Amino acid sequence: MLYRLAATLLLAAPAFAQTPVTEAARAYREAHEAAILAETMDFLRLPNVAANRDDILANARHIIGLMEARGIDGRILEAGDASPAVYGELNVPGATRTLMLYTHYDGQPVEPENWTSDPFDPVVRAGRLEDGAAILDDPLAGDIDPDWRIYARSASDDKSPFIAMLRAIDALRAAGLGPNVNIRFFLEGEEEAGSPHLRALLEAHRDLLEADLWLIADGPIDTRGDPRVLLGVRGVTSMQLTVHGASRVLHSGHYGNVAPNPAARLALLIASMRDETGRVLIDGFYDDALPISNVARSYLEAGAFDEASLLAEPGIARTEWGPGALYGEAVMVPALNVLGLDAGATGPATRNAIPDRATAAIGFRVVPGMSLDWLRARVRAHVENQGYVVLDRVPTDEERLQHPMIAELHWSPAGYEAASTEAGHPLIGHLVSIVDTASERPVRVVPLLGGSLPLAPISEVTGTPFAIVPIVNPDNSQHAPNENLRIGHLWDGIELYAAILADDWEGD
Amino acid sequence: MLYRLAATLLLAAPAFAQTPVTEAARAYREAHEAAILAETMDFLRLPNVAANRDDILANARHIIGLMEARGIDGRILEAGDASPAVYGELNVPGATRTLMLYTHYDGQPVEPENWTSDPFDPVVRAGRLEDGAAILDDPLAGDIDPDWRIYARSASDDKSPFIAMLRAIDALRAAGLGPNVNIRFFLEGEEEAGSPHLRALLEAHRDLLEADLWLIADGPIDTRGDPRVLLGVRGVTSMQLTVHGASRVLHSGHYGNVAPNPAARLALLIASMRDETGRVLIDGFYDDALPISNVARSYLEAGAFDEASLLAEPGIARTEWGPGALYGEAVMVPALNVLGLDAGATGPATRNAIPDRATAAIGFRVVPGMSLDWLRARVRAHVENQGYVVLDRVPTDEERLQHPMIAELHWSPAGYEAASTEAGHPLIGHLVSIVDTASERPVRVVPLLGGSLPLAPISEVTGTPFAIVPIVNPDNSQHAPNENLRIGHLWDGIELYAAILADDWEGD
Repeated sequence: MLYRLAATLLLAAPAFAQTPVTEAARAYREAHEAAILAETMDFLRLPNVAANRDDILANARHIIGLMEARGIDGRILEAGDASPAVYGELNVPGATRTLMLYTHYDGQPVEPENWTSDPFDPVVRAGRLEDGAAILDDPLAGDIDPDWRIYARSASDDKSPFIAMLRAIDALRAAGLGPNVNIRFFLEGEEEAGSPHLRALLEAHRDLLEADLWLIADGPIDTRGDPRVLLGVRGVTSMQLTVHGASRVLHSGHYGNVAPNPAARLALLIASMRDETGRVLIDGFYDDALPISNVARSYLEAGAFDEASLLAEPGIARTEWGPGALYGEAVMVPALNVLGLDAGATGPATRNAIPDRATAAIGFRVVPGMSLDWLRARVRAHVENQGYVVLDRVPTDEERLQHPMIAELHWSPAGYEAASTEAGHPLIGHLVSIVDTASERPVRVVPLLGGSLPLAPISEVTGTPFAIVPIVNPDNSQHAPNENLRIGHLWDGIELYAAILADDWEGD
Repeated sequence: MLYRLAATLLLAAPAFAQTPVTEAARAYREAHEAAILAETMDFLRLPNVAANRDDILANARHIIGLMEARGIDGRILEAGDASPAVYGELNVPGATRTLMLYTHYDGQPVEPENWTSDPFDPVVRAGRLEDGAAILDDPLAGDIDPDWRIYARSASDDKSPFIAMLRAIDALRAAGLGPNVNIRFFLEGEEEAGSPHLRALLEAHRDLLEADLWLIADGPIDTRGDPRVLLGVRGVTSMQLTVHGASRVLHSGHYGNVAPNPAARLALLIASMRDETGRVLIDGFYDDALPISNVARSYLEAGAFDEASLLAEPGIARTEWGPGALYGEAVMVPALNVLGLDAGATGPATRNAIPDRATAAIGFRVVPGMSLDWLRARVRAHVENQGYVVLDRVPTDEERLQHPMIAELHWSPAGYEAASTEAGHPLIGHLVSIVDTASERPVRVVPLLGGSLPLAPISEVTGTPFAIVPIVNPDNSQHAPNENLRIGHLWDGIELYAAILADDWEGD
C-alpha cells in the first residue's frame, strides 16, 4: 500500500478472543501454525515486482493453486497489457450477500544490497531486526512465538492478508461455522506500480465483479494496536507553477524595483491561494467537496486517529487547520500543499541578483465530491484572475515585452481522484460491529485517510461500497528494505477475517 | 567598481572639443599618444589583486613614482592591516578650492585560464576581441586608432582613470592653462575586496583628507556614449529568513492541513512585506528615506538613464514600481528584493511531502536617510508582529511544540549604507556645468545609482560632498575575463579631467 503513517509502535496485538467464531479460528490456527507459516513463506519466495511479467505470472499461477486447494474457482483476468489480476469465486449455498476480498500480490521494487537478508528468501527472526533478533534455523520445528517476524518483500504488503483470508475459510470449515457469505477474490498484480490498468480490468470484467461490499486488506492496523476500518482516501494531483520575470538574472541594485521580482510575485500568488490555516482561497474550490457527515464526525471524535502522537512526534504544536481541529477533521478537507519552492539561491550561494523565474511545486489533496479536472480549471482561472497570462512553456522575448505578468503551469500526469464510502452506509455499520465484537480492543473507524490510493476506479466502475480492513503491524517497513510481518498479526488477521466471513451479512 | 550595467553598447565617444582647455588637452595628447599608452601599459603590467600584499606594495611604489615625476607629493597611508592607500598632494598657488581625486589601484581576482591573453601582460588589439580583432605587434610604432583596445586586468577598473588625471595635469601645464585648483589624490588598494578598511583609513588620516569635493573616477560612462555624473548609491544588506515547520519532512497526504506548511507560510510572510509593485509594507520602513528632490527629478526626466534599452534588453514590459515610473525613480526608492527561495523540491524531484523548513534570501537596497541597523530592527519586529518567535538557530523539539510559528533570521555581515550628495548642492551644479561645457554630448546626471558601493565612509567621515565622474567604456568586461579599455575613452578622459582641473571652482 502506498501510504505509511509515522510509526509510533504500539505492538500490543488486537487480541481477538471474544466469540465462538474467533475462538474456533484460534484453535484451528494453534493446530496449524507451522503449516500456515510454511504456506506464507512459500508464497513470499516468489519474486513479485510488477515490471517482471514472468515473475508476476508465476505468482498468479501460485495463487490459483492456493485457491483450488480450497475449492475456490480461480482464474486470471486480463486487460490489454496489464499485469493480470487473479479472480476467485466461492459461492455458499443459501448465502444472500457477496463480499469481494481485495489484496494485491505484486510488491515494491527491491534494492537487495540494502536488505539484511534476501528479499525473496524469507527468513524468520526471533523478534525485530532493529532489536538484534537472530534468524531462526528451523522456525517450523516447534512452538512459534507470535513476536517472531518474517522478513521478505510483501510479507506485509500485501501477500500475508491473502493467506489470512484463505486460512479463515479453512478455520470456519473445520469448525462447521461457515463461511456464510459468498466470497469473491480480486488480487491485483500492479498496485505498487500505481494500478495503471485497474479501471480497464474492472471494466473488462464488470460482470464477474458484482458484490455487496469490497473489503480491501492492505496497509497496517492502527499504531495503538487497535483494529481499523478505513472508509476512503483523499485524491491527489500536483502542479509546477513558474512565475517568469526578466529574460535573464539581473543585478538587484540596478534592477531592484525595476525588473519584476518573480520570487516575490510567486509568494503573492501562493498567498492569494491559501491562508495561514490552510483554507484555500481559490474561487469555488470547495463547491463540490462533500462535508463531514455526523457519523464520520462521531468516528473522528471516538479516536479514529492517535491524535496526540501524530502531532507530538514530528514536533507539531497544533493542527494547521485550526487550534481546535482534530487531526481527522484536517485530513477530511481538501489541502493545498506547497511541496517545494525554487528561485535564485539562498544561504552561502546567495547573489545580489533578481531571479529570472520562480517555481513552486504545489500539491492538492481532494475529498470525495471534487473532480481533478474541475480543480485544474479553477486553479488556472485563479492564476489568470491574478493578472497572469498562463502558458505551458517559457515565454518568448516578444511575449515578455507584451505581457507584464506571465506564469507557466504544468500539471503532473499522475493523480488519483478521491474515493470513499459513506460512513453511514448500513453495510459499514455492520462491518464495524463485526470487527468491534471480534476484538477486545476498540475498532478505529477512519472515515477518510489523508493519503491517496487508486481506489476511485473501484467505486466508480463497480458502484459498490468498499472498506479497508487491514491486519498487519504498522512497523512493517513496507516499501523499504527489510519489510516484515509480525506473525502474531497474521494469527489475529485469521481471526478477524473468520469473524467477517462467518457472518451472513443480512443485517443486524 | 562593483556595479555593471547592462551593456547596450553605443560606442560613440563623448567627443570633447568645445573649449580652449579641451582643445589644448587634445593637442597635448595627440603629441604624446605613444608615451601615454606606454605609461598605461607599464602600470597594468603590475599584478594588483588585493590579497597579494607584495603586489599591492609594488603598485603603491609605482604610483608614488608616477606622482613624483609630476612634482606631486606622494605617500602611503596605512591603518592596521589594511592594503595601503596612496595619497598625493599638489597645491596650486592662489587656488582656493581643493578637489580630492579618487581611484582604486587594486583589481578583481583573475582566472587566467579564462582569459585570451595574460591579464597582467597587457596587449593592444585593433578593436574588440569579440569582433575578432588581432593583437598588434607594436602598437606604439605609429598612429594609434582610438578604437584600439588594451586588454588587461584593471585596464578600465580602475587604473586608466589615474593615468587620465595625471596626463590632464601634464596637458594643462604644457598649455599654461592650469591646474587652477588644489589637487589631492586618494588611491584605494582594496576596493575590489569590499573596502574593508576604508573607514579606518579615512579616520586615521582625516587631517590630510580635507577637500571641497571628492571626485571618484570609477565605473563606466553612460551606455549611450554620454558623459556621466553620479551623485550617490543605494545601500545594501541581506538576510536569510527561514520558516520552520515540523521537525521532519512529512507525507503531504497524512499531514496536509495538519502539519504547518513552512513554504506556504513563507509566501505569506513575504506577501506581508512587499506588494506587487515593490512597495514595502513593513511598518515604518520608509520613515527616514529621503524623498526624491525636485532637482534630482529634473535630472531623471532629462534622461539620466537609457530607459528604453534598460527595460527592453532584458525583456521587461514595464517598471515594477509602476507603469508610469521612470527607471531612475524606481532605483531612488528603497527596494526589497527576494533573491532566492528554497523549500522541498520542484520539477522532477518533487515529492508528495511537506517540507520541514522554507528559506528566502531577501536583499534590501536602502536610500540616503535610512540606516541599516534601524532597518534590521524594523524587519525583525515585522516578523514578530506576524506571530513568529524569531530565533537565530534551528528550534529545539521543545520550542516547536511550544511555539506554533518559528522563524530563523540571519543578517549578512556584509552591507553598505547608502550615500549621496544632494543633487542641488552648488558644487554639483558647477561640476555638471563643467562637464556639459566640455562635451558635445549631453551630460547624464544620475542622482542615485541603484547599485551599492562603499561610499558612505567618505561622506560620513569627511563630511565632504562627492560625485562619480567616470571615463571608461561600458563594454569593458570589468570583473570578468578579458577586461579592456577602449583607447579613445582614455583620450576623452584626459580632456574631461583637464576641464575639471582647469577650473578654479570658485563659482559661476
